[in-house]
Amino acid sequence: MREYATQMEAARKGIVTEELKKAAQKERMSTEELLPLAAQGKVVICANRNHACIDPEGVGSMLRTKINVNIGVSRDCKDYDVEMEKVMEAVNLGAHAIMDLSSHGDTIPFRRKLISECPAMIGTVPVYDSVIHYQKDLADLTAQDFIDVVRLHAEDGVDFVTLHCGITRKTIDQIRKHKRKMNLVSRGGSLVFAWMCMTGEENPFYEYFDDILEICREYDVTISLGDACRPGCLADGSDVCQIEELVRLGELTKRAWEKDVQVMVEGPGHMPMDQIAANMKIQQSICMGAPFYVLGPIVTDIAPGYDHITSAIGGAIAAQNGAAFLCYVTPAEHLALPNVEDVKQGIIASKIAAHAADIAKGVRGAREIDDKMAEARRTLDWEAQWECAIDPAAAKKIREDRKPEHDDTCSMCGKFCAVRSMNKALSGEYIDIL
Amino acid sequence: MREYATQMEAARKGIVTEELKKAAQKERMSTEELLPLAAQGKVVICANRNHACIDPEGVGSMLRTKINVNIGVSRDCKDYDVEMEKVMEAVNLGAHAIMDLSSHGDTIPFRRKLISECPAMIGTVPVYDSVIHYQKDLADLTAQDFIDVVRLHAEDGVDFVTLHCGITRKTIDQIRKHKRKMNLVSRGGSLVFAWMCMTGEENPFYEYFDDILEICREYDVTISLGDACRPGCLADGSDVCQIEELVRLGELTKRAWEKDVQVMVEGPGHMPMDQIAANMKIQQSICMGAPFYVLGPIVTDIAPGYDHITSAIGGAIAAQNGAAFLCYVTPAEHLALPNVEDVKQGIIASKIAAHAADIAKGVRGAREIDDKMAEARRTLDWEAQWECAIDPAAAKKIREDRKPEHDDTCSMCGKFCAVRSMNKALSGEYIDIL
Repeated sequence: MREYATQMEAARKGIVTEELKKAAQKERMSTEELLPLAAQGKVVICANRNHACIDPEGVGSMLRTKINVNIGVSRDCKDYDVEMEKVMEAVNLGAHAIMDLSSHGDTIPFRRKLISECPAMIGTVPVYDSVIHYQKDLADLTAQDFIDVVRLHAEDGVDFVTLHCGITRKTIDQIRKHKRKMNLVSRGGSLVFAWMCMTGEENPFYEYFDDILEICREYDVTISLGDACRPGCLADGSDVCQIEELVRLGELTKRAWEKDVQVMVEGPGHMPMDQIAANMKIQQSICMGAPFYVLGPIVTDIAPGYDHITSAIGGAIAAQNGAAFLCYVTPAEHLALPNVEDVKQGIIASKIAAHAADIAKGVRGAREIDDKMAEARRTLDWEAQWECAIDPAAAKKIREDRKPEHDDTCSMCGKFCAVRSMNKALSGEYIDIL
Repeated sequence: MREYATQMEAARKGIVTEELKKAAQKERMSTEELLPLAAQGKVVICANRNHACIDPEGVGSMLRTKINVNIGVSRDCKDYDVEMEKVMEAVNLGAHAIMDLSSHGDTIPFRRKLISECPAMIGTVPVYDSVIHYQKDLADLTAQDFIDVVRLHAEDGVDFVTLHCGITRKTIDQIRKHKRKMNLVSRGGSLVFAWMCMTGEENPFYEYFDDILEICREYDVTISLGDACRPGCLADGSDVCQIEELVRLGELTKRAWEKDVQVMVEGPGHMPMDQIAANMKIQQSICMGAPFYVLGPIVTDIAPGYDHITSAIGGAIAAQNGAAFLCYVTPAEHLALPNVEDVKQGIIASKIAAHAADIAKGVRGAREIDDKMAEARRTLDWEAQWECAIDPAAAKKIREDRKPEHDDTCSMCGKFCAVRSMNKALSGEYIDIL
């Protein structure tokens, strides 16, 4: 019998868990530094008691920024083998979390396989699965059905669950009255909203929040408080619907912490660049430092096919200003279910954003690899450059496609290479250019 | 005979030129608004008297952010037809400027063809061409040779020239003493530096700056003051070499303005995200509002193959904070001369950065297209979405590769589509999900 229910309770009792020890090591922190942050809820260590193979990571604004990769089948793309291939690719590329967003077929075997094989944190959105699990249409589900699926996922070993607890029946009026350009774009949020509209009942994830806390406490499932009202276009950014939900998420964070349940808070979405820093600061204040998990933010609405780039811009700014966890966005966002190549492109773009932010906020050791790359460039040591590169194979391929005449240069500048000229100039050599 | 030498002189005399009129229209500004900005040097209109087909644009921090595309042959990639293909692609994709950085062969015919056919602003770096034009090795060139090539480019109709006027013999000692990680990474800057080292003479672009101003005044060539000391890695960001050169560029800006010569100032480079805003503010102050033309900035050194993304992050932040002009960066940066596809990817990433920044700084009308896209998304009108997309063909292809079963959705969410659920919920319809 362990002496604590959750990582938060352990930290509060001063118990250094194995998971906390491993998470601290990865951050080059002592357990004495990390423990109070876990106790205060500023760092979460998502590690369900039933996820045996987990390689634990801390998530918090003062740690390395973590990235999440969404996978899962849909009615139109239902090949579980392809999804498992994406998972393996994601883990190899350094993803810290995998969210299984499957919305078709029998979801149990894949989820269990994922949890038994994948060392990254596993997240789900149980409300999707409710429809699938019971094979009942949305209006026919009961509040208890929703709660039971949360328990099922907890038993299966899911490390964090997105629950849209922050909207209520009042939100229906607010959305009608406020006339947002994009209403709700949260898939789970829209299901809860639609269910409330059809049944006339209150949001079960709000109404039965205490029951949910019991389940999450029992298995140490971290609640990722979903932002149903996250802006789905620039025009809706930072509007009253979004901010009022955030206030409610702050209240729910407090209630969860009272039961030692770990919490992350989800955030935008689509947002003009100039609003991002303010949004991060407000969340940190309203939610008392609970880790902010952002979905983007996407900084322009007009780039379908390139939303890995629009979200790399927004994600980097968000992480620099306090977001702890970035949900990747792929080039297929807004268009189709991502394929394996889209997944890769999405992960690389998120990693760039996370790493750039870590450097900017001075995360321990973050810039070391950049300094190594600079050394390798100054000495024109191409092998050493590949070793520092975020995607060595891709970089190598570009250089080798267009091989230069002179091995110490590249085909961009040839003997006009600034590095070559400077090395010769500073060592007093004659500089031949022609 | 026209009554003014340069657009700046015209503006100072209160003359509304055809070029200023067209540039104002594109910004939805009146000529009364734009004219004082051109007179003060806060906006440049790069339009050489000999560039007959130019479609003029203003460049300034309060206008839409402009983007530049580098092309040109090198010893390893010398096909001029491919370069012309890149130019046409660039102009079609909305590039505002083309810099011909050719460093091989007979450069005159291509430059003249470019200027006679391309309506975008044309820029060059005459110091590259000096070596090529005279077919002499660097050490054998005279100060007069360099100046004569500036005149040749001015006569040919080049709209702006990058000149590395801001380094002097003192810089040699400074670079030796300061031990930067990457020394100079500016190709032109390193040539000037190497020439000074080998000849023992002063930088001709600094020493004969007044002669250069005469040439630029005569043809209305805008000087783009090159930043030889721009940081080439994060570790060198905002160091004394960079900032001292910037101070000198501020002095030279003043001298140019005294002769009504238009000026842009070039800037970083590689730079940690948290330094970018400060750098933009300092340049605007030191250079009295002269437009800042940034090369990146690249926010991590470790992403060769993806530097269109690292620079989209840095460029967006730079433009939001005052940069007026972004030099595109392609996926081939640091590796090879970009091919046609790299050029396209580089342009799209720069356009995203520029547009996101324009929205953030409230440039007139910038967000209209985003609002249209949001409308199209809410109504699930796919044709209207393609019309708003930055690259309609790429977006369409992703959707059509993975066609959904239900035409009003996409294969990502199918009937779980939040937009579909919300539209039905708000109009009181029954929401079928299964």
